[in-house]
Amino acid sequence: MAMEGYEVFLSNLILALGLSLIIGRLFEDAFVRIGVPPVVGDLTAGVIFGTVLTAVGIHIYPQGDPGVDAFAWFGVALLLFYAGITTRYGEFMRTLRWASIITIGEAASAFSLGTLVGLSLGYPLLKALFLGTILEATSVSLTVRTLMDIGKLRTPEGNAILAVAVLDDVSSLLTIAIVTSFAKLHVLEILPAVEIAGLALGFWLGIVLIFHKIANPLVKYSRKLKISDPVLSILLGIFFILAVVAKYFNVSLLVVAYAAGLAFSDARGVESVVAKLRPMAVIFSTLFFVNSAARLNFLTALKPEYTVFYLAMIGAAFLGKLMGGGLFSYIVGYTGWSALRIGVGLFPRAEFCIIAAVAGETLGVVGPAAYFAAILIVLVTNFTAPPLIKLTFTRGGPSGMRRRGVKK
Amino acid sequence: MAMEGYEVFLSNLILALGLSLIIGRLFEDAFVRIGVPPVVGDLTAGVIFGTVLTAVGIHIYPQGDPGVDAFAWFGVALLLFYAGITTRYGEFMRTLRWASIITIGEAASAFSLGTLVGLSLGYPLLKALFLGTILEATSVSLTVRTLMDIGKLRTPEGNAILAVAVLDDVSSLLTIAIVTSFAKLHVLEILPAVEIAGLALGFWLGIVLIFHKIANPLVKYSRKLKISDPVLSILLGIFFILAVVAKYFNVSLLVVAYAAGLAFSDARGVESVVAKLRPMAVIFSTLFFVNSAARLNFLTALKPEYTVFYLAMIGAAFLGKLMGGGLFSYIVGYTGWSALRIGVGLFPRAEFCIIAAVAGETLGVVGPAAYFAAILIVLVTNFTAPPLIKLTFTRGGPSGMRRRGVKK
Repeated sequence: MAMEGYEVFLSNLILALGLSLIIGRLFEDAFVRIGVPPVVGDLTAGVIFGTVLTAVGIHIYPQGDPGVDAFAWFGVALLLFYAGITTRYGEFMRTLRWASIITIGEAASAFSLGTLVGLSLGYPLLKALFLGTILEATSVSLTVRTLMDIGKLRTPEGNAILAVAVLDDVSSLLTIAIVTSFAKLHVLEILPAVEIAGLALGFWLGIVLIFHKIANPLVKYSRKLKISDPVLSILLGIFFILAVVAKYFNVSLLVVAYAAGLAFSDARGVESVVAKLRPMAVIFSTLFFVNSAARLNFLTALKPEYTVFYLAMIGAAFLGKLMGGGLFSYIVGYTGWSALRIGVGLFPRAEFCIIAAVAGETLGVVGPAAYFAAILIVLVTNFTAPPLIKLTFTRGGPSGMRRRGVKK
Repeated sequence: MAMEGYEVFLSNLILALGLSLIIGRLFEDAFVRIGVPPVVGDLTAGVIFGTVLTAVGIHIYPQGDPGVDAFAWFGVALLLFYAGITTRYGEFMRTLRWASIITIGEAASAFSLGTLVGLSLGYPLLKALFLGTILEATSVSLTVRTLMDIGKLRTPEGNAILAVAVLDDVSSLLTIAIVTSFAKLHVLEILPAVEIAGLALGFWLGIVLIFHKIANPLVKYSRKLKISDPVLSILLGIFFILAVVAKYFNVSLLVVAYAAGLAFSDARGVESVVAKLRPMAVIFSTLFFVNSAARLNFLTALKPEYTVFYLAMIGAAFLGKLMGGGLFSYIVGYTGWSALRIGVGLFPRAEFCIIAAVAGETLGVVGPAAYFAAILIVLVTNFTAPPLIKLTFTRGGPSGMRRRGVKK
C-alpha cells in the first residue's frame, strides 16, 4: 500500500514512541532499582535498538527519521519548559545572588577542561568546544538522594550543591545554545561570537523578566476562558510563539523553553499547569533520550584508538567539577573540607550531558564517539558518586564557612 | 542559516502548535460563549490561516507540512484513545444490547443518504461513500447540554440519545476506517470489501476483548514500576505498538485508538491515567482541527455551482438522522413523539464529521468542497439543534414506550 508523506512520519512516530514507552521505560525501572538515574535506561534501550539489534540484522527502530527527530526535540523542549516552571522564580533570583560565583567557577572549569581535552588530541576548535559543553552540566538528583540517605542534605554543603545545580542548568543551556549557534553560523571569531552569546543571554533575560511581570494577569485572564485546560494552552502557546520569534534571531528553542517556564513559575494558580505538564514532558522526553541513542551505531565508537579520548573525558569530568567547584567554594569562604564535598557533590551527569552530545552530533560537529563518551560519563559518575559523597561527607574536618561573608 | 531536515519540521510544528493554542483556543472560547461546540472555533482559526490570510498574501501558517500533518493525526489518535478510555466498558456492553438496533438504523440511514447525494450528483462511488461517512457521526454533547438546560436529560428519549451516541462513535469510526481502506487499496468489489470490513471489525473486537481481560493485571504490574507516570506510559506504549501491528493489516490507527482506550477503561486505578491524558488529548487534537482547516484554501469551494451540493448535504444531514433515528426508535417500541425527539436529538455533528472529511480530503478522494460541506453541516446543525430540541421535547404527545419490550 502506497503511503503519503505524512503517513510515513506518523507510522515512524507511533513506532518510536511505542518502543520508547515500553522498552525504554522498563529499562528505566531496572536501572532505578540499582540506584542509577532513569535516563540510563532510555539510553540502554536506544543502544539496543540502534547498535545491538542492527548488528545482528534486526532493524526494528525507525533510525534517523527526520519527523521522529523533530518530535524528540519537541519532547526535550517540553522537559526544559517543565524544568523551568518547577524552578521557583523567587528562589532562583535569591540563589543567583549567592551561588553564582561558585557556578561560574565550576562550569567554566569543567567546560575549559573538556575543551582542553579536545584541543590536546588535535581536534578542531568547534569540536573541542562541544566536548567542553558535554562536561559542563551537573545533574544533582542523585547527589540529593544520597545526601538524604545519610542525613546530610540540609548542611551548608548540601545547600550550596542545590543552589549551584539550579544555576548550572541555565549556564549549561546557554552554553549549548551558544556553541550550537557557532556551529550553525560557522563563526568562531570574537565579535560575532560575542553577538551570539549576547543574543542568547539577552533573549533569556528578556523572556524571564518581561513574562514574569505579566505572568499573573496572563494566568488570571486565561482562567476565565470557557475552554478545557485554558491556562496550560495559553502558556504553552506563548512559549511556542516565543520560540518561533527566537528562531529568527538564531536563539535556540531550549533557551526559550527554560526561560518561559521560569517566567511563569511563580504565577498564582500555576500548580495545575505543572501537574498537567509533567506526564507530557515525561512521555515525550523519553522519546528524546531513547531516540538520541537509537539513531546512532556505536560500533564505530568501540575502537581501541578511542581509549585515550574516553579516559581523558572521564577524568576531565571528575577533575573539572572538583577543581572548579572546590576552588570557588573555597574562594567564597567555605572550609577546605566543605569545598571538597561541594566539588564531589557536583560529579553526577545525566540529561543535560546527553542533550549537549546530541546537539553536537546532530550538527555533525562531533561523532558517535563523543556521544559514547557522554554515555560513559553518565554511567561512571553515577556509579561512583554515591560512595564518594558518603566518604567525604561522613569524615574529615568541619563543614561550613571559614569566616562570615556569604549569606545563605 | 541552513536548516537540517528535522529542524524544518520542528520549526513548523512549534509554529502550528503556537498558533493553534493561542488563536484556535481564543476562537473556541468565543464560540462556546454563544453555545457552539469548541471545534467550530478551531475550524474558524484554520479557515482564517489557510484561506482568509492567504487570500491577502499573508502566509503565516505552515500549510501542508507533512510533519505537522503527521503530528495532527497523532493528536486526534490521542483524542480517540481518550474518548475510548472515558467510555466505561461495562456500560458500553450494556448499551450495546439495547441501543444497537437504533444505532445501526440511524447510522445506515445517514450514511446511505449521503452516498445517495453523491451518486445523484454523478460523483464516483468512492467519493459518494465518503460523503455518506461525513454525515454518519453524531456528536451529542450539545444535545446533552440542551436537555440538561430544560431538565429533560433523564427521560426515556434522553437515555436513548446518550446510548446511541456512544455506539455511534464506534460505528462512525469503523466506517471511516473501512472507507479509507477502500480508497487506499483501490478496491470496491464485494469480496475484498468484506475482507477489509471484517479485518477492521475483527481488530476492533479483538483488541477490546483481549485487552479488557488483561487490563487489570497490566495496570497492577505497571504501578509497581519505579518510574514516573508508569501506568500512562505502559498503556500508551501498548496502544502505539498495537497501532503498528494493525497498520500491517491496513487497519487504521483511529480504530486501534478507540478500541485500546475502551479496553482499558474499566481497569482499577485507571482514573489517574484519564486525568493525565486529557490535557494531552486537548492540546494536540486542537492542532488537528485547526490544521485540518488551515491546510486547505476554501476559495475554490466558494463557487455558485456547489450550492446544490451544499444544500443537499445539509438536508441529508437532518433527514438521515430524523428518518433513521426516528424510524428505528419507533420499531423498537418508542412512541411516535419519542421517536421524533430521538431523531432530532441526533442532529448535531462535530469532531467526527470533520475527521471523516479530513480523511477523505487527505487521500484526495474528496476535495475542499466536501470538507467545506462538513464545516457547514457542523455550523448549521449546531445552531438549529437547540431550538428544535426544545421545541420537540417541551410539547407533543407522551414520551416513553408504546409497549414493554425494550429495557429502560
